[in-house]
Amino acid sequence: MHLASCNLFQGISDLQLTRLLGIAVEVRMAKDQWLFQEGQEANHFFVLENGSVELITLVNDKFELPVALLKTPGSGFGMAALIHAADYNVSARCAENGVLFRIDRSKLEKLIGEDHELGCRLMANLARHLFIRLRDARRELKAHFKSLFLLTH
Amino acid sequence: MHLASCNLFQGISDLQLTRLLGIAVEVRMAKDQWLFQEGQEANHFFVLENGSVELITLVNDKFELPVALLKTPGSGFGMAALIHAADYNVSARCAENGVLFRIDRSKLEKLIGEDHELGCRLMANLARHLFIRLRDARRELKAHFKSLFLLTH
Repeated sequence: MHLASCNLFQGISDLQLTRLLGIAVEVRMAKDQWLFQEGQEANHFFVLENGSVELITLVNDKFELPVALLKTPGSGFGMAALIHAADYNVSARCAENGVLFRIDRSKLEKLIGEDHELGCRLMANLARHLFIRLRDARRELKAHFKSLFLLTH
Repeated sequence: MHLASCNLFQGISDLQLTRLLGIAVEVRMAKDQWLFQEGQEANHFFVLENGSVELITLVNDKFELPVALLKTPGSGFGMAALIHAADYNVSARCAENGVLFRIDRSKLEKLIGEDHELGCRLMANLARHLFIRLRDARRELKAHFKSLFLLTH
């Protein structure tokens, strides 16, 4: 069981982890199956147990831009489901048959409402995760501008 | 006083806001003064009371890439100070004389440790803020790839 190794669950007590396990559903996924699409209401957060998942965004009808390939058991995705009333900002497609844990947004919100210490830890871990992703995205943008600057100067 | 209108403090009770005010220090800033530099340990979170602040990142010695110009009283910046042991991911420079509220990271961590409900709300607001910034950065990246795709196809 790799749910516990998800970076969002770091620093969480055994009791809190048991409660999280209580709302997690094990689901099988098949290669090429879509788990969610960019722009859809984010109702589920997922943790990879085994197999692999591609996160992608569509540049246009023909061109997919890869965001990440998740292979490590315990990888969490669909983080938008942890932001109140948010939509998925990428699409997720199964790249290899496997198993996932699926956590329902409303059940997680209820759990957090009953245990603010858990909520504080989860949200702090989520903020750290998004902070790192934002730093990486800005570095990539900077690399684009650097190339542009070199071309024009 | 615009501290209360900061997006990170949404949904916080009057009592919790009073506690936050208790650890906030009012400071004057002068045009062209650096408030922090990218890569420095993030020890302070700031809220704009009046004046304006530029957030920038250096592409190279000669070229600054603007990230945001903050003019609205209540704008928060230096969010990295709310992520445990993180460095600032942009630099901040005063664009117009003004007044700021400065909140010390260690004092805020202490407050959150004593009040997990406050911590949960603050971290959830921070995660939402970073989620939107990440979505915007990825949209910008996508626009770059779209231009590139049009040029090469």
